[in-house]
Amino acid sequence: MTQRYTLTFQPGDVKVPDVPRGESVLRAAMQANIHINASCGGAGSCGKCRIKLLSGEVDSDRSAKIDDDEWSDGTRLACNTRVSSDVAVFVPEASRMGNAAVLERELRGERKGRLLTPAELESLVTGWTLDPVVKKLCMQLTPPSDGDNLNDLARFRKALKDQFGLSSVSVDSIWIRNMPSVLREQDWLVTATVVDTAYGYKAIDLEPGSHCEQDYSVVLDIGTTTVWGQLLDLTCGATLAQASAYNKQISFGEDVITRIVHSQRPGGREQLQQAIVDTVNEIIDELVESTRVDREQITHMVAAGNTTMTCLLVGIDPKYLRMTPYVPPADFIPPVRAVNLGEGLKVGRHVHVYTFPSVASYVGGDIVSGIVGSGIFETEKITLYIDIGTNGEVVIGNREWLIATSCSAGPAFEGGGVRHGMRATDGAVETVRIDPQTLEPTILTISNRPAIGICGSGIIDAVAELLKVGAISQNGRFNTDLDTWRIRETDGANEYVLVEAEYSGLGEDIVINEADIDNLVRAKAAIFAGIMTLLESVALDWADLEQIYVAGGFGKYLRIEEAQAIGLFPEVDVDSFTFVGNGSLLGARLVSFSKDMLKSAEQVALMMTNVELSDNQLFMDRYMAAMFLPHTDMSYFPAMDQVLSGLAAGGR
Amino acid sequence: MTQRYTLTFQPGDVKVPDVPRGESVLRAAMQANIHINASCGGAGSCGKCRIKLLSGEVDSDRSAKIDDDEWSDGTRLACNTRVSSDVAVFVPEASRMGNAAVLERELRGERKGRLLTPAELESLVTGWTLDPVVKKLCMQLTPPSDGDNLNDLARFRKALKDQFGLSSVSVDSIWIRNMPSVLREQDWLVTATVVDTAYGYKAIDLEPGSHCEQDYSVVLDIGTTTVWGQLLDLTCGATLAQASAYNKQISFGEDVITRIVHSQRPGGREQLQQAIVDTVNEIIDELVESTRVDREQITHMVAAGNTTMTCLLVGIDPKYLRMTPYVPPADFIPPVRAVNLGEGLKVGRHVHVYTFPSVASYVGGDIVSGIVGSGIFETEKITLYIDIGTNGEVVIGNREWLIATSCSAGPAFEGGGVRHGMRATDGAVETVRIDPQTLEPTILTISNRPAIGICGSGIIDAVAELLKVGAISQNGRFNTDLDTWRIRETDGANEYVLVEAEYSGLGEDIVINEADIDNLVRAKAAIFAGIMTLLESVALDWADLEQIYVAGGFGKYLRIEEAQAIGLFPEVDVDSFTFVGNGSLLGARLVSFSKDMLKSAEQVALMMTNVELSDNQLFMDRYMAAMFLPHTDMSYFPAMDQVLSGLAAGGR
Repeated sequence: MTQRYTLTFQPGDVKVPDVPRGESVLRAAMQANIHINASCGGAGSCGKCRIKLLSGEVDSDRSAKIDDDEWSDGTRLACNTRVSSDVAVFVPEASRMGNAAVLERELRGERKGRLLTPAELESLVTGWTLDPVVKKLCMQLTPPSDGDNLNDLARFRKALKDQFGLSSVSVDSIWIRNMPSVLREQDWLVTATVVDTAYGYKAIDLEPGSHCEQDYSVVLDIGTTTVWGQLLDLTCGATLAQASAYNKQISFGEDVITRIVHSQRPGGREQLQQAIVDTVNEIIDELVESTRVDREQITHMVAAGNTTMTCLLVGIDPKYLRMTPYVPPADFIPPVRAVNLGEGLKVGRHVHVYTFPSVASYVGGDIVSGIVGSGIFETEKITLYIDIGTNGEVVIGNREWLIATSCSAGPAFEGGGVRHGMRATDGAVETVRIDPQTLEPTILTISNRPAIGICGSGIIDAVAELLKVGAISQNGRFNTDLDTWRIRETDGANEYVLVEAEYSGLGEDIVINEADIDNLVRAKAAIFAGIMTLLESVALDWADLEQIYVAGGFGKYLRIEEAQAIGLFPEVDVDSFTFVGNGSLLGARLVSFSKDMLKSAEQVALMMTNVELSDNQLFMDRYMAAMFLPHTDMSYFPAMDQVLSGLAAGGR
Repeated sequence: MTQRYTLTFQPGDVKVPDVPRGESVLRAAMQANIHINASCGGAGSCGKCRIKLLSGEVDSDRSAKIDDDEWSDGTRLACNTRVSSDVAVFVPEASRMGNAAVLERELRGERKGRLLTPAELESLVTGWTLDPVVKKLCMQLTPPSDGDNLNDLARFRKALKDQFGLSSVSVDSIWIRNMPSVLREQDWLVTATVVDTAYGYKAIDLEPGSHCEQDYSVVLDIGTTTVWGQLLDLTCGATLAQASAYNKQISFGEDVITRIVHSQRPGGREQLQQAIVDTVNEIIDELVESTRVDREQITHMVAAGNTTMTCLLVGIDPKYLRMTPYVPPADFIPPVRAVNLGEGLKVGRHVHVYTFPSVASYVGGDIVSGIVGSGIFETEKITLYIDIGTNGEVVIGNREWLIATSCSAGPAFEGGGVRHGMRATDGAVETVRIDPQTLEPTILTISNRPAIGICGSGIIDAVAELLKVGAISQNGRFNTDLDTWRIRETDGANEYVLVEAEYSGLGEDIVINEADIDNLVRAKAAIFAGIMTLLESVALDWADLEQIYVAGGFGKYLRIEEAQAIGLFPEVDVDSFTFVGNGSLLGARLVSFSKDMLKSAEQVALMMTNVELSDNQLFMDRYMAAMFLPHTDMSYFPAMDQVLSGLAAGGR
């Protein structure tokens, strides 16, 4: 368990509890809505975030921006000062954003959605034990002799039965080819890899010697825009590493429809399959390189993806997914040999990829995986589950019933279709605050690296802040009358400079422009309308929801108040929100660890009812109404209504 | 049913019953031991086999050797005159071999082993019905609609259950890839190929439209020297075509030991696998070309081979087969995908190859197949089963018990290791008689084509005849004192000219030399010794055998008296012998037609006990004793003893 401390800010005696050991003072402050100037994203280069240490122990780096006297006096940079006890700091006026009033205003929004620790995320689902569907069994066989010349295969089967009670185990002819030498290489000490199928146990691999302590799986969330992977240790249930990459299919189209269209061109389906295979191979490379795990010891793969992504991975023709009556090719696709996908995933020949079952053309295995991973299939509470990606998937229900839909949001939330967008990796601007007086921004980047782009939560933050300070109007157009150089026209289009070239890792200004804002508005409108349509289809209202789970690659960084400010969600109680991060990956992880969870996933898919939004007039109406910041119907957004009215009264 | 007639030869009023319609007079005569001169193998070119038609109807070709007067007078060539009613013919003295006494002598040996018709061969095993393990099912599915948008795969599974009562059918991901368009191509009329596995039904292919009337299999006997294949029609149980080819592995060694040694060289195993795959592909090509069957409609393959051949086909390391304690890699090898063998067998991706289970390193699936195909596993009679090939396999037993062994005969019986040896196909000399006075030969070739070589039965005939006329001694050396140009020395070695270049399709003399005879002696000695060893191991004698089944590629042409004359078998009652032709192919055929027979094959493999001949001193003793023509112990060969004594008395 990471130790947690209380961090106290002066002036104002603002106490921030539960700051984990090693967290930077700047990040803790921003997450508690206490704003300290910082232009460089926490990289230590701008020197603006000076604080003075009052009490407690910190781990702090020296900086050229602080001289020896200042250092002795307790002056530090908030961005590179990490707490290692309860700590009190003073924020000098020069470091404060705007003035003390800002701090006051921001403090009103202190409550936020529940951000779960990795340990908490992995404990969302209970009642399962580590019991993977693929297992390694180490066996010492009795060598043959003149009086016992049973053939090799029968000898192996006999040991499986005698030592593990497994009878009628079927075998894969692939490993039988070298079985004679494998059995003898380490004097009849071998490790078998067996899989528990619906049709009984099957031995899929045989290695010489004992390898039971090396048993790994790769689980994947195959998004239309971004692919995430985790390397799991199946012997102990640990998550060893995580990696992500843009889906290389992007070059054939941004959304599933254009991908399906491309798949119908000659060779198109093969190109798309190879693109995702290449993407996954990159992720596998990164996972095994960062952990130094032997890739031959990967025994299992699980992939969660929407129906189109699953089809294209396996190589299934997705043509009819987009044609009425929207019939998907398959609910349950049998496990496929990884090396047979396209030119082959770079794992052992015995490894099979398990894909999550689909519900409908646009409600796929990723959402089934999310429902499993977040534990909604176990809870009695009526839950709204939203997975925000290129397709926004929405589920309402509990252990008794589940209703689901999918709305095409586009890639804006993953940094796609945005001038300086990027996915949520090192150097992405993830948090933005804008001083209402000076219109100066403060940013935080992932890993405190110099900013090289803006990820989904950063774009939401930026647009929300620009709206709240009156820099943009409710239809997403810049107010060009303001006294700031940051709003400017470039090539005939207005934009806001979020990071100056001087502090940017790109060597150029990082900006948000009106086209970016339009893309974000379309994305949030689709999801808001999807939720509304689903609620209305079961005659529920926001108030009936007992909990709201938000998943998505950026879930970890998203601030719910900012998402509400742009109208992604209405202004319901922020405490009802829980961020589950990448819910699909969470489900894929469970399914790889537990064959009981594999069965649960199949049950979830069977109990889930799809609501089709194509040709759904109610959805179209709700969508058009949401194409405004935050919405045309401000009754969902009373607080923002007040903020915007105040701006109007103040002349912005 | 082919009609059968009686053919009467004059002078002597020798009646030959049961001559099938269309059989040539020459062949019918030779099979009845009535000898008519013929040097050209029945090709019609030598003109020596003149006969005169006395009564009855024949179908006869004109020949330049017969003038118009002769033709009007009823003169014909026996080789191109075919019976189409009961027929009587006169054999002029010029056409008779030697003199009338010969005819008398030969008639004494009229009885011969039972040669079964194809229909009889296919009726050896009863109690099975046409019920292949792989089946095609034609289905009309209900198209999806707005009210019924069940996914494609679930719709297919539902139809399998509703229309055929098959539930929990597993599916192969290969065909799912194109399932959406396949289902729709002919308005939801499809044909599924399903296989009944030990783990339930599995759907392995899906075709648009109705294809139940096209369902074929290829069954193979993979011999060390020769590979035989048949194309079967699984819809009606018919055998459509047969083809054979030398095993291309021959270039890496003639017997299984040299093949195993080669397999241990770098890349050797892959070379050997590709060689047999190439061989089988040639056979498949020939089968589909001769029948115009669509090779995509082949759904099933069965291969019977000895343990080494089976390993090399599947790609299994055979290294330990030849090392004590002689442990084979596997008894039951799971069906392997045909396209995955080497560079791939040229059939559909869904086709799997079933290999017969092995008993021991040198008692393989071919012998199991033979026991199944010949019906020995069903009979109460104590039976000796001999499969004569490069490995001579010997089984004794009945439905209660089976004991088996294998002896390395070498390729002589298949024409291998013999100067002009060839396998039993068109143009091979299959029958040889030699005039004891003139030492002139009469030959018959397969399909009456000009001779291009000598197959196994031809070699046995030739050596037996040479021995009986005193042209060779009991140790296989030529008597060079005889008054015939046919025995001559070429390059320091003695040989007998069987076919002069003038009548040979090769354009050169076809000969038998002493090295050929030595190879044949070694081959027959190994088999005789194997039988003796097996009999002694169960304390039985020849007299205890109620029936003797002889299998082998040449079985159809082999004359048992000639085989006894060289000492391949002792002089037991010729009537106890039945020729089953290619027994392995017969078993492979049954297994492809009937899943009950597939189970029987597994039971046969499990009940068969192996007797190991390697390092078996009894076998070595019996082998050395048999290295003589016909044997060192002439008590097994009283008739030959008399013949040879007569020759000695006569000065030869």
